[in-house]
Amino acid sequence: MVKITFPDGSVRTYEQGVTGLQIAESISPALARNVVSCGVNGETVELNRPINEDATIALYKFEDEEGKHTFWHTSAHLLAEALQELYPGIQFGFGPAIENGFFYDVMPAEGQVISENDFAKIEAKMLELAKKDEPVVRRDVSKADALKEFEADGQAYKCEHIAQDLEDGTISTYTQGRFTDLCRGPHLMSTGLIKAVKITSVAGAFWRGDAKREQMTRIYGITFPKKKMLDEYLVMLEEAKRRDHRKIGKEMELFMFSDRVGKGLPIWLPKGTQLRLRLQELLRSLLRPYHYQEVITPGIGGKSLYVTSGHYAHYGKDAFQPIHTPEEDEEYMLKPMNCPHHCEVYARKPRSYKDLPLRIAEFGTVFRYEKSGELHGLTRVRSFTQDDAHIFVRSDQVRAEFEANIDIILKVFKMFHFDNYEAQISLRDPKDKEKYIGSDEVWEESQNAIREACKEKGLTAHEEIGEAAFYGPKLDFMVKDAIGRKWQLGTIQVDYNLPARFKLEYTTEDNAKQTPVMIHRAPFGSLERFTAVLIEHTAGHFPLWLTPDQVAVLPISEKYNDYARRVVDHLDAAGVRCVIDDRNEKIGRKIRDNELKRVPYMVIVGEKEAAEGLVSMRKQGGGEQATMTMEAFAKRINDEVAEQLKTLD
Amino acid sequence: MVKITFPDGSVRTYEQGVTGLQIAESISPALARNVVSCGVNGETVELNRPINEDATIALYKFEDEEGKHTFWHTSAHLLAEALQELYPGIQFGFGPAIENGFFYDVMPAEGQVISENDFAKIEAKMLELAKKDEPVVRRDVSKADALKEFEADGQAYKCEHIAQDLEDGTISTYTQGRFTDLCRGPHLMSTGLIKAVKITSVAGAFWRGDAKREQMTRIYGITFPKKKMLDEYLVMLEEAKRRDHRKIGKEMELFMFSDRVGKGLPIWLPKGTQLRLRLQELLRSLLRPYHYQEVITPGIGGKSLYVTSGHYAHYGKDAFQPIHTPEEDEEYMLKPMNCPHHCEVYARKPRSYKDLPLRIAEFGTVFRYEKSGELHGLTRVRSFTQDDAHIFVRSDQVRAEFEANIDIILKVFKMFHFDNYEAQISLRDPKDKEKYIGSDEVWEESQNAIREACKEKGLTAHEEIGEAAFYGPKLDFMVKDAIGRKWQLGTIQVDYNLPARFKLEYTTEDNAKQTPVMIHRAPFGSLERFTAVLIEHTAGHFPLWLTPDQVAVLPISEKYNDYARRVVDHLDAAGVRCVIDDRNEKIGRKIRDNELKRVPYMVIVGEKEAAEGLVSMRKQGGGEQATMTMEAFAKRINDEVAEQLKTLD
Repeated sequence: MVKITFPDGSVRTYEQGVTGLQIAESISPALARNVVSCGVNGETVELNRPINEDATIALYKFEDEEGKHTFWHTSAHLLAEALQELYPGIQFGFGPAIENGFFYDVMPAEGQVISENDFAKIEAKMLELAKKDEPVVRRDVSKADALKEFEADGQAYKCEHIAQDLEDGTISTYTQGRFTDLCRGPHLMSTGLIKAVKITSVAGAFWRGDAKREQMTRIYGITFPKKKMLDEYLVMLEEAKRRDHRKIGKEMELFMFSDRVGKGLPIWLPKGTQLRLRLQELLRSLLRPYHYQEVITPGIGGKSLYVTSGHYAHYGKDAFQPIHTPEEDEEYMLKPMNCPHHCEVYARKPRSYKDLPLRIAEFGTVFRYEKSGELHGLTRVRSFTQDDAHIFVRSDQVRAEFEANIDIILKVFKMFHFDNYEAQISLRDPKDKEKYIGSDEVWEESQNAIREACKEKGLTAHEEIGEAAFYGPKLDFMVKDAIGRKWQLGTIQVDYNLPARFKLEYTTEDNAKQTPVMIHRAPFGSLERFTAVLIEHTAGHFPLWLTPDQVAVLPISEKYNDYARRVVDHLDAAGVRCVIDDRNEKIGRKIRDNELKRVPYMVIVGEKEAAEGLVSMRKQGGGEQATMTMEAFAKRINDEVAEQLKTLD
Repeated sequence: MVKITFPDGSVRTYEQGVTGLQIAESISPALARNVVSCGVNGETVELNRPINEDATIALYKFEDEEGKHTFWHTSAHLLAEALQELYPGIQFGFGPAIENGFFYDVMPAEGQVISENDFAKIEAKMLELAKKDEPVVRRDVSKADALKEFEADGQAYKCEHIAQDLEDGTISTYTQGRFTDLCRGPHLMSTGLIKAVKITSVAGAFWRGDAKREQMTRIYGITFPKKKMLDEYLVMLEEAKRRDHRKIGKEMELFMFSDRVGKGLPIWLPKGTQLRLRLQELLRSLLRPYHYQEVITPGIGGKSLYVTSGHYAHYGKDAFQPIHTPEEDEEYMLKPMNCPHHCEVYARKPRSYKDLPLRIAEFGTVFRYEKSGELHGLTRVRSFTQDDAHIFVRSDQVRAEFEANIDIILKVFKMFHFDNYEAQISLRDPKDKEKYIGSDEVWEESQNAIREACKEKGLTAHEEIGEAAFYGPKLDFMVKDAIGRKWQLGTIQVDYNLPARFKLEYTTEDNAKQTPVMIHRAPFGSLERFTAVLIEHTAGHFPLWLTPDQVAVLPISEKYNDYARRVVDHLDAAGVRCVIDDRNEKIGRKIRDNELKRVPYMVIVGEKEAAEGLVSMRKQGGGEQATMTMEAFAKRINDEVAEQLKTLD
């Protein structure tokens, strides 16, 4: 018999050799129908793998990340099987599961081309094959046998991969129907679980990502265990397109890019700048009770700064190259992060235990070289501004700082209605200690401090072993946006490395010298990324307190422009942010244009309003309409803002 | 007879050959005693130069800049004459007048050293020679004669200069007593006017500023026509040392430099950052009525941006070198100015005459390479943040924008009690038109617009011909600080160049395309420079509304720390910025330390205060003292701030 421990801590005993599927069946038939793979002692394996020793087990459904990964991995094989049937002589490269689905890199036989026109055919073939519900069978093979087999199949890329990258004894293949792939697994037990298929796109991709090698065809797809899930996904994709922050950013005139200024270097336009400054003020007000000290440091740093921090050693050809100064032969780097500068601020004078925690904050603009092909709107840029801070603490102060920062981050989420979020504690891998700096004791202490802080704050956080940085454990936050997509936002990280490299110290109560611990943290991550996520989350309908223009005043015709200006002056004086649309356009056109700009309230003024000192309000999106005095309207706006800002209290 | 026109426009006639001195004598004996040189048709000349044609004339006293220049130029010769007597065999390099006095680069004969110990001796010799009141006599000589003369004297450097740099027919010498110098003049008529002498310092300097040539000895000095003026100057120097912003910046913990971050790259410390953010907010509120649109642009720009702007062509070895990106082989530059970025913002969409003026503002951080030897605190740095804006206008809108910006700049001066300021209109040189871009017509129009704007605003501005940039005329502001030193602050500049280079345009009322005019303007110049000037102007005693900490709460002993914290909480809640000094130190020490930090108010709390809920207030600088309730004290602070901010209304 083997003892099986479940995620909730409960233990059952089973006969030796029991499989994940059998365990699922022992719990409920519904579970058995939906389970796709399982985790045994932290490793994801097939459901039919026998368990011969005591183990912890997790049963993964499609809804779980690990389950999706298994499902899509098998789907990649299904795609390959379909392609093999449709395109005889096709050769295969790599075909992994990815965040949303899977892809396969293939080299069609000479003269063959796979394009969008073929998607329907491929989808149909995949579904046809899946219906056969063929078992996916694993075999462990020797390197020689594997080579022989794939050579016989004419799979040159697979052979190259086996010959160059793999060692004897580590090779396994998976077969379904007439298709066999070189693969480490795990997979679904059979392909019948795949009920819905969508080939999403096709692109070129170099074999092994090497621009000097052959260009292959990369085919992307996604699959689901239910047709309904695919339909929902496609709706979500459409919705995501509608919410694309690059599109909305243009419509609302929030930011721009210029080829001459440079790719991936965002320019915040006036309305975006207003939004950003308001976000910065929000953060400042959230930090105020915690005694952060804001600094402003230069956008470049000298070579010796990065030699000290250790970054210089890693500063390779894939980064912005250093800036030389003439005559004095100095070398500067665009600031890739703010921490080395903040260490210098710490080091500027002797510090005592009484000075800790010392919290140095900065809206710090940093530069990172990203390949132009990987740039994307505000989410992947070459210059961005972190809402950064570095907290220098005694090791017994780590927990309290995590608690405070969990409070701050959750308040941010609440302010922006990110009601759906996850937290992850990244721990070191205790089996691989030499990868990390710092003693067992300090790691235990800080990992526990993070756990306890989460517990104290009622934050459920899952733990990932081996995901810590080499310099310390961390706590990361993911939010789900309004259409269910996950985004990584806030982070809180412990760092044992930099304070030591900068030889930072403080005088302890008994007059000894001690190295402080450093905590990096950023509730937003960066202003650029946060703004992008916020746009996609709200579809540009920002909360009233934040949105650049709260009200657009639209005169029915030019005759009422003067009255419209009086309304603007009145609202201005009442602290309401408004614009006038006094173009010589029809009112319908004005309404449409201001809808596109997502101004939350429109105020339409014509003869009646001008005569009686009224405004006709119209809520964005064709919502509520009402006529009232200017005073009442201004009060309404200000009341709504005040109500929204209550979350801060 | 010749007609002589005076600066006030009045005209008198004199006999042909009349001299500046004779004209001064004809006006008043006092003027004749004090005049040191004169301007004839804009050129400064000696007082004994005959005037043979109709001319405009200005009579310069020591108080005038031109007068000082003449006075100190002759003083440099007097220094050389003294050195020649004291150090036989000494050789002379260059000896110009500078902003505060003059210097002479000399090469003492072998074995001779001139050090601080010799200053008194040199001063005495200069005064002894000056008492002789020897005439300074000009002679025009041929190159050959000049060479012969200085060779005979053993003046190798003078000979090199004549041989390499001068052309026949342009050479003049000036002789006083036994000393003759190669010199273009002008000079005092005789040395007797020099009544007070101070040798201020000695330093090394390479001949011709070339590090590969001989190192000479540079001797700095200053002189005055009255002993009292020297005394005042020395007091001012002491006072300037006391107000040095580098010293006060350290004491108040406003900013720091770090060798590792890099020379000339200021780090704004928490208290400095607070101050800076408050300055930025002040500027924002001053701009609000004028509809500026704030943007945020990246700290780097691509090569093609600067090729377009024309800067790239001038981007030489004496600038920060470009940043390369790997793989994509792009070239970026640290942003040396914000205007090219703002042109891109203008160009992002079609503009109509209705959109103008378009005012794009930015607190834009720029980088300029300065030699490390020339860096100085916050006034000469390698990275600074301009309170920049670029206004795109139709040419008929130039005047109104100058008027608005004069208002803004004068409001800034008023806010900071810079009651003493000068303005200068820099015009093009009509004799040298090919140096400038743009037609006669546009230059006339914009120069007149500036003149009229000044007139409208009651601002007296002197005009300098030939001081305009090649791209347009400008208006600059100089302030005198509390100890009489001049600082260049605000600037407003017309630019006809960049809009054309960027092919910017707008659609006119009759649907034609027109290039806008651009106005650069910065009321502060830069936040770094302005902060430095403000520190030196106020000696760190910032106005209450601006200063980082308004109140320091000092418990008499640790027994009253709790009560002190209550006071802090109360003041905090009332919006008063305060710090607590709860160190275990004597109250006298605490007062001294907080005086050094220039906290405007100290509040001392002990037994009586704690018992009765009072605070004992003490104004910085040992001023007013009073005991009152916390409430009354908070109100007093807030009232004082409100009073100061009234200037903004």
